[in-house]
Order: sequence, then structure tokens, then C-alpha cells
Amino acid sequence: MSKKAIGFIDSGVGGLTVVKQAMKQLPNESIYYLGDSARCPYGPRPQEEVVQFTWEMTNFLLEKDIKMLVIACNTATAAALETIRAGVDIPVIGVINPGSRAAIKHSKNHRIGVIGTKGTINSNVYKHTIKEKDNTIEVISMSCPKFVPLVESNQFNSSIAKKVVAETLQPLLKESVDTLILGCTHYPLLSPLIQNVMGPNVTLIDSGAETISEVSTLLDYFHLAESSHNKTASEHKFYTTGSPKLFSEIAETWLESSHLTVEKVNLQTND
Amino acid sequence: MSKKAIGFIDSGVGGLTVVKQAMKQLPNESIYYLGDSARCPYGPRPQEEVVQFTWEMTNFLLEKDIKMLVIACNTATAAALETIRAGVDIPVIGVINPGSRAAIKHSKNHRIGVIGTKGTINSNVYKHTIKEKDNTIEVISMSCPKFVPLVESNQFNSSIAKKVVAETLQPLLKESVDTLILGCTHYPLLSPLIQNVMGPNVTLIDSGAETISEVSTLLDYFHLAESSHNKTASEHKFYTTGSPKLFSEIAETWLESSHLTVEKVNLQTND
Repeated sequence: MSKKAIGFIDSGVGGLTVVKQAMKQLPNESIYYLGDSARCPYGPRPQEEVVQFTWEMTNFLLEKDIKMLVIACNTATAAALETIRAGVDIPVIGVINPGSRAAIKHSKNHRIGVIGTKGTINSNVYKHTIKEKDNTIEVISMSCPKFVPLVESNQFNSSIAKKVVAETLQPLLKESVDTLILGCTHYPLLSPLIQNVMGPNVTLIDSGAETISEVSTLLDYFHLAESSHNKTASEHKFYTTGSPKLFSEIAETWLESSHLTVEKVNLQTND
Repeated sequence: MSKKAIGFIDSGVGGLTVVKQAMKQLPNESIYYLGDSARCPYGPRPQEEVVQFTWEMTNFLLEKDIKMLVIACNTATAAALETIRAGVDIPVIGVINPGSRAAIKHSKNHRIGVIGTKGTINSNVYKHTIKEKDNTIEVISMSCPKFVPLVESNQFNSSIAKKVVAETLQPLLKESVDTLILGCTHYPLLSPLIQNVMGPNVTLIDSGAETISEVSTLLDYFHLAESSHNKTASEHKFYTTGSPKLFSEIAETWLESSHLTVEKVNLQTND
């Protein structure tokens, strides 16, 4: 048992889709979230830079004494999970293994699509992870560089978003995938639009929901879960390097909560 | 990645219900199984004896160089999980946390039933685990001492089994549970009979299926999963302290496999 919070980091607001699942599945747990919206998107950045930024976010939350870290960002998971895991002494969980595992479980025709940022797709991490588990599966990957800016600017319900999503996903329609991994935690905010384009026969995999099942398993395994007998209510704290106002607007809509405290922070390299 | 096998131990043939899920969800993995049918059932035995027998099974499989141990027996998990986990240097997984987590997720009316052996039910481990996670849930527990012998003697499809299951579960019917944990790995072999008595509105939780999702998470977390690129086929070995013939009959029916090698072994205390 531990009263400490679970830390979540993301390039911006995307990791809130993972937090939403955490609030639902782990109501006793406190959550500290840091979104690096000022430097978002991470997708087009060189890997070394993503690793550096991920370390900066990690160090910020480690100072708040978290008990577990969730890298709630596919680009950062692809670039930095192993390095961060080797360098800190709390459990560190990424979003790629849980999403891959769920997709393999769901796919019947052995054709899985993956959409993500340029960084994630170019790293081939989903293809590699899935084929390690089952090399009979065909993985069709596509980067969607326009999606994250739509979400970060709170335009994910707009008619522009609808048009961009339809145009971007067009080439994927002829690939006959039956399962599509939303390989970026920003994308579940666009999932009604994505589902509409892909059609009802394609199962969308939200890696956030899958990741929280993994978090729950590891909390139990490492005896870190908060007890429901604890009288202190769970406490959530949100930090952003960007605009707290914009962050609050998106977070309050997405998390259906009106009591969020969002603090603006600056990140510096921990040398 | 690791070519080593995952070890499964049980008081008898019950853990085969967990193995069935492992073969389905983790087809690349090799499985070594040890069932202590000669000393089954564990349910009525004192806790110290169950701990001792569990250590004997664990030591037998550790000598076969397994990479992970699944205590595929609720009674042994309740009595010995923490001790075994603290005493060996490979990951050790029990069946109680995964079953509890799944039941909480499924229950809508917050009334969860648990059936198990006398040892498991008297330990109150399910009640404790569930209420740690959500103390608004009512847990109704009942021991079913006649169930394991029915399974071990390969009578789980018989008319006697039907009668025993109906009579035993009668008191549970007025408790209005909407979810029932099969808190003994032998019980999924009786699940058609149990479902029939409980009715279609009660969800049965097979802790085996849930446990294998946890095994999969931990194989990934500890980099122990076998690669599908490995050309060597997975290899399964079955050991029993009881009758290899009876074990084979049950295992071949349950696992729908006709190529099982079952070896008779004797267990001795490792002093």
C-alpha cells in the first residue's frame, strides 16, 4: 500500500485519455500529470531530443515523490522507455506493449493497422513488438502528423478535424485491417471521427485503457496500490508547460470534471 | 526474451484450466506443470502444511530452470504466495489478485460471490483483497469441499456432479450476487453446471483467464517473453504425483490435445 501518487507524463494533453481510464479503474489512486504542451508535438523531433525532454518531465515528477511513472505518450515511450526504466528505481510503464497485446487479442484477420506520430511510426516499435509476439500478423503503419495539433488546439470536434481525419486515413481503407491501434494518446479524442472513417467493422484500440490494466497489475505486484480503507480522498494535480487555460478547457471536457487545478511549470535539463 | 519455460503448480489437475488459457494467449511459451494429485485436496489441510507442499512443488520446478512461477491454485496462493515470492528470485504470480480485479470490473450491483475450498474461504483472502480495492462491495463467500474430489476423479460431467453442484450452491441463490468468482482452479471444469444453477444473469469469473493476462504483462515487463521468431516450437511437460493415466485422461480432454507426456514424480521436502 502506498499513499503516493502515480505520475503521468505526455507531450501535451494526449495522456489525459490514459488518466481518464485511471480515474475510472483506479479510483483510490492519486494522479500527478505533467503535459509538455509548450514543446508539443514531440512526433517530428529527433529521438535524442525526445529522450532529453522525457527525462526532464520524469525528473520533475520524481521530485514530487511519485510511486510509479506512466509514460502516457507513444513517441516518448518509443524513444525513452528503456532508458528511463533503467535509470529510476520506481516501476515505469509505457503505452506500446499494452496496446500491442490488446490488438493481437482482437484481430481475427491478422491485419493490424497502427496510426501514430512520425517519431512513433518511424521507430517501427509497434511492428517490432507485435511481430515478436506473433510473426504471422501483418502490421500496416501510417503516421498522421496533423492529428496532434488539432487536439492540442482544442479543435478535435471541429469540421476541420473531420476533413483532416477523413483525408489522412483514406489510404488505410484499402488495407483491410480489422483492428486499428490508436498509437498516440492524443488520438482517442478523435476516435468518433476515426471510427466513422474506418467503418464499424474495424476495432479501435485505445492504448490508454489497456495501459491502466497493466498499471493495476503492477501496483498489485509491487504492493503499491492505495487502499480503499484509507480515509484521505485521492488527490489529482495537473501541470503544464503550456497555457493552463487551454489545458483546463480540454481536461475539464475530457475528464468531465470541473475542479481541476492546473499549474504552469517550466522544465529545465537536469544535468 | 527467454527460452525457459513458465512453471505452473497446483494441488492436482485444477491448474490445467489456467494452462489452457496460457496455451491460447501465449502460444510461444513453453509450459512445465506439476500437479500434486497424490496429496489433493489441499483445501482442508492446515496452512503450514499447504505452505510446505507448495515449497516442495516450487523447488521441483526451480530445478527445471523455469523463468516464472504461476501458483495456479487458490488454496496455495492464499497460504503461500507472499512466502514463495520473497524466497525465490523469479517472478511469482498467484490467482487471487487477477480474479478479484476482474470481478470488481464486472459487478454492477456491488455484490460479489466467491466459492472455493475451505482453506481459501477461511483465509478470507478474496474478501480482504476485494475490499482493499473497493470497500463498498459486499463479498459473500462459501466453501464447496465436495467440488475438487469430483474433478480429480474425472467425474465433472457426471449426474452426481450435477446434483452436488445444485445442492451446494442453493444457499447462494438468495444472495443476489451478479458476479461469482470461481475461487478454485478446479471449478472451471464444473462451470457449465455452476452457470446452470446460478442462472444466466450471474457472470462467472474464471481466475485462470485473468491470471494469464497478468502473466503476459509481467513477461513483457521483465523482458521474459519468448519471441515468435524463435524457430524452436514451444514444449510442454506435465508432472503429477498421482496417477499419470488419470491425469492424462483429464488433461487431454480439457486441453483438447492428444500428445501430452505425463511423468509421475515423488516430492520430498527440500531441507
